[in-house]
Amino acid sequence: MTETLDVPAAATDHTTPRHRAEAWLAAFDAALRARDVEAAAGLFATDSFWRDLVSFTWNIRTVEGRDGIRDLLQHTLDRTDPTDWQFSEEPADAGGVIECWITFETAVGRAKGHLRLKDQDGETRAWTLLTSLRELKGHEENQGTRRPQGVEHQLARGRKSWLEKKQDEESSLGRTTQPYVVVIGGGQGGIALGARLRQLQVPHVVLDKHDRPGDQWRGRYKSLCLHDPVWYDHLPYLQFPSNWPVFAPKDKIGDWLEMYTRVMDVPYWSRSTVRSATYDEDTKTWRVVVDKDGEEVVLEPKQLVFATGMSGKPNLPSFPGMDIFQGEQQHSSQHPGPEAYTGKKVVVIGSNNSAHDICGALWEHDADVTMVQRSSTHIVKSASLMDIGLGDLYSERAVASGVTTDKADMIFASLPYRIMHEFQIPLYQQMAERDKDFYDRLEKVGFHHDWGDDGSGLFMKYLRRGSGYYIDVGASELVCDGKVKLAHGNVDHLTETSVVLEDGTELPADLVVYATGYGSMNGWVADIIDQATADKVGKVWGLGSDTTKDPGPWEGEQRNMWKPTQQEALWFHGGNLHQSRHYSLYLALQLKARYEGIDTPVYGLQEVHHTS
Amino acid sequence: MTETLDVPAAATDHTTPRHRAEAWLAAFDAALRARDVEAAAGLFATDSFWRDLVSFTWNIRTVEGRDGIRDLLQHTLDRTDPTDWQFSEEPADAGGVIECWITFETAVGRAKGHLRLKDQDGETRAWTLLTSLRELKGHEENQGTRRPQGVEHQLARGRKSWLEKKQDEESSLGRTTQPYVVVIGGGQGGIALGARLRQLQVPHVVLDKHDRPGDQWRGRYKSLCLHDPVWYDHLPYLQFPSNWPVFAPKDKIGDWLEMYTRVMDVPYWSRSTVRSATYDEDTKTWRVVVDKDGEEVVLEPKQLVFATGMSGKPNLPSFPGMDIFQGEQQHSSQHPGPEAYTGKKVVVIGSNNSAHDICGALWEHDADVTMVQRSSTHIVKSASLMDIGLGDLYSERAVASGVTTDKADMIFASLPYRIMHEFQIPLYQQMAERDKDFYDRLEKVGFHHDWGDDGSGLFMKYLRRGSGYYIDVGASELVCDGKVKLAHGNVDHLTETSVVLEDGTELPADLVVYATGYGSMNGWVADIIDQATADKVGKVWGLGSDTTKDPGPWEGEQRNMWKPTQQEALWFHGGNLHQSRHYSLYLALQLKARYEGIDTPVYGLQEVHHTS
Repeated sequence: MTETLDVPAAATDHTTPRHRAEAWLAAFDAALRARDVEAAAGLFATDSFWRDLVSFTWNIRTVEGRDGIRDLLQHTLDRTDPTDWQFSEEPADAGGVIECWITFETAVGRAKGHLRLKDQDGETRAWTLLTSLRELKGHEENQGTRRPQGVEHQLARGRKSWLEKKQDEESSLGRTTQPYVVVIGGGQGGIALGARLRQLQVPHVVLDKHDRPGDQWRGRYKSLCLHDPVWYDHLPYLQFPSNWPVFAPKDKIGDWLEMYTRVMDVPYWSRSTVRSATYDEDTKTWRVVVDKDGEEVVLEPKQLVFATGMSGKPNLPSFPGMDIFQGEQQHSSQHPGPEAYTGKKVVVIGSNNSAHDICGALWEHDADVTMVQRSSTHIVKSASLMDIGLGDLYSERAVASGVTTDKADMIFASLPYRIMHEFQIPLYQQMAERDKDFYDRLEKVGFHHDWGDDGSGLFMKYLRRGSGYYIDVGASELVCDGKVKLAHGNVDHLTETSVVLEDGTELPADLVVYATGYGSMNGWVADIIDQATADKVGKVWGLGSDTTKDPGPWEGEQRNMWKPTQQEALWFHGGNLHQSRHYSLYLALQLKARYEGIDTPVYGLQEVHHTS
Repeated sequence: MTETLDVPAAATDHTTPRHRAEAWLAAFDAALRARDVEAAAGLFATDSFWRDLVSFTWNIRTVEGRDGIRDLLQHTLDRTDPTDWQFSEEPADAGGVIECWITFETAVGRAKGHLRLKDQDGETRAWTLLTSLRELKGHEENQGTRRPQGVEHQLARGRKSWLEKKQDEESSLGRTTQPYVVVIGGGQGGIALGARLRQLQVPHVVLDKHDRPGDQWRGRYKSLCLHDPVWYDHLPYLQFPSNWPVFAPKDKIGDWLEMYTRVMDVPYWSRSTVRSATYDEDTKTWRVVVDKDGEEVVLEPKQLVFATGMSGKPNLPSFPGMDIFQGEQQHSSQHPGPEAYTGKKVVVIGSNNSAHDICGALWEHDADVTMVQRSSTHIVKSASLMDIGLGDLYSERAVASGVTTDKADMIFASLPYRIMHEFQIPLYQQMAERDKDFYDRLEKVGFHHDWGDDGSGLFMKYLRRGSGYYIDVGASELVCDGKVKLAHGNVDHLTETSVVLEDGTELPADLVVYATGYGSMNGWVADIIDQATADKVGKVWGLGSDTTKDPGPWEGEQRNMWKPTQQEALWFHGGNLHQSRHYSLYLALQLKARYEGIDTPVYGLQEVHHTS
């Protein structure tokens, strides 16, 4: 009998993922505790990325390489005081990379993270680290084991019922009580943020111009369904039911948003338009003038969030002859749907998502439709995108293999934007192969197709420029079949009855639809606050990738989204349902911290390089 | 080297739960395949129970002992043709009983079950078996991997949008198209069944007299919260969110039911009252005359479901002097809440749930309240009931330990009613001990308290008689403190200004509330169809336990609930949220099978022993 007999073989094998990960995390923890920034940075690979969502930086920020990590830690380590680093799951080897789910605490909160380790010169080094604040200590959300009781198990004279309290709150809000946060825009973004703020007990109100929540979707063309699948679209706290369609029809999603707003007790003012907002630098208070269903109400919040839609204001082009054209002209956002245009000649300027959707619906209603393609567009088949692009994270298959929505969001967030295209390119190569016949047919009819500047496809286009693509749910097939006609080139001018392209092609038209996209979201700031503030804040959206419509320099994160801007107390929120869900958490925590008077020094506030 | 060396030790140990369970299930399967009823029955213990929910019996039925099992199999085995018996989880030993989760198929469907094995005379024998039909082959629900696409990825002229289809369905229902099922009553029961029938694509409509779904709850007294906790209350397909209160306030549950109805696309007619229903035995069709918001509409369904509330019609007593009493008199169901009675003298006749709730709310509004206890009542503290009575199955703790709602429902359903009280008695003994001080105080003020005829407590009272208890959320403490006064005995008569008890006690009153309970649900049948049909169907609810208010003979199941009755094509549905959720599945499957023309021979249709 020897002493070593009792030790299982695995325990002495320091090359197992767990042991390598444990050793790394222990060293990292030790370096942080010792405030040894150099040692901590040295644990990262030379090519490495640390993405922080609010836990260290009170910002959404990615730093790169040891220099970046050193800089982040020098500015944030002392006050963050991170402790209690643990694995929440067994570290797993995935093709030479060890993937780890971690948790830790900071001075003020509890955080989750994701870590990828790899071998560099025989040493285990961090390749990517994602850290994210999940809750503030002493301000935990009332969920699960902390859910509210709902009833007081003691009777008392003068106590108020849930309904009475709700009615009191509604009648005093904006009159005798002021919201700490005003959210402008009550689509999925505003609603998701509203639900988070309600959970965090931050007094707020969501303002929206429509008659009721969900009208943002109901008002659009009738055949519209979500282009993203159900697993990608869940809102916070309440998942879509198991029988929800993969691609929800617009009226169904409208109903869902309306009921969600009610069930989550989001303070929501319908038929309310913001006339103006001004910031008082002395009192640190906004003055927001609201037209509330015809009545002027002045709100005085400390924080103002624009959740007005990531597309910003319509870009309406200016062509000679628009003034003499005798038919109808609309920006795509104004298009009422196809019903009135049966038998009419319609020219749609543009070839991205809106253009395709509108052309398809018009063809279904027997209009004579021509799409004018001015520049190349990226098309993917919806089924291929679901399967190859999203399937590992957002699908029934992912759910079955234990990838919860939060996990999928974290994995997605853990891929640094700098290298995300490298992960995307092979996916789109697969799609090109799978749908070769389709792309051949598109090419044959002369459609100009691209895969993005670097072949990285749809999602990178979305993140970089928010445009330049169409997820094919049928309209591309109409183009291939010649049912929707195709023309090319820029518009030269309009006549009384037609659109004339630069090459002289004349397209007779009863209706011209300008599917010419949208400007940056800070256009809303110019309208509601002033141009100076819009310029101070600068362009919203985009990564600074120096690709088409996303000018550099490199930002590393979405410009101005869900994080502090150059204008104190002014925020932007939005994006698709996935982003509205995930990033609303970090924005809500930033607002909650300020509401509670927690110190929130921002590391790496972005500079402004573009005003629009 | 010997051959046995390769066999792991466990595999030869036939006493492990898995091996004992596998051996039993293999023998059971073999007996069933051989149609050897004797052998199959012999695999059960002498004291044993087989509860079937629709999978063998097209009924909800428990048989007892080998004779009962033999009888069930003789009548059902050939056509059920059960196959493919499997364990869906590792069988586990729980104190000498092996608990197993099983699945199997029948000729027409897929089923789940739960099995408890024990040792009898050295042999492994079944003690309890629960079998339940979960889906019909070829009619699987569109959920999860089968969820609908929502969008058609091909454009086509003339196709209709989701909204247009919904509007078409709404405008034609009851005019040019007939529902296969009419559900009378749109509370949680009708709504849950409606959601199931929608999923199963059975044309139906839910009729309700209120302005909108949820008003069944909204209209009740303002401090009302659910007495059952959130984990027990989920509706099918869509769980309450993680931030939902433990005990939802009535207006909040009202909102939830309203939005659930919409989100689940339940065809729901508000402001609709059924004037009459008659069954044509020749055409096998009901003629249901509906007052639909003032308009008479005649529906002609094949199946009629009463989901009018398990409490049935109010029992209003008849006391001498009720005609001369000059104050107000109300049945508890008519009580408008306490607001109007501040400073008034109120006498509440009765001492169960409604009486306590009403007394508590009146006291909160400074009324002078006396509760008249006519017979003893069972009281449990809400917190103790949650913890001891429900905690293992329906709690955050249960969720954390993997007990899903479906699993909890199945475990609950697996305990035969015949012996359920044996499981319940020790729980209530624990509560008696834990809350001894409370019960001492109750006794001290003279409150007559009981634990049910056999000490089995609240849930058995609920199942047997649906009355005789109060879950204390505060009003009992008012009784203990003398804030709600207590009187005892039967009412002798009323004077112009008071209630006089048999012992001569005179209680001055401005208002008398009769919290005197409800009759059997077939009272609604008498009103809407006729007395003959009500008598033919007989008493609804109760087990035939031969305890107070639940006369024998023993039925083994809830009378008339969720299963065929003596009146063809007439059904009852309801109960608390738990029952509305779980049993709506089996009722919906029974209706779906009939809709699809699947043969549904009913085994063991209950006899009628009591007409009310």
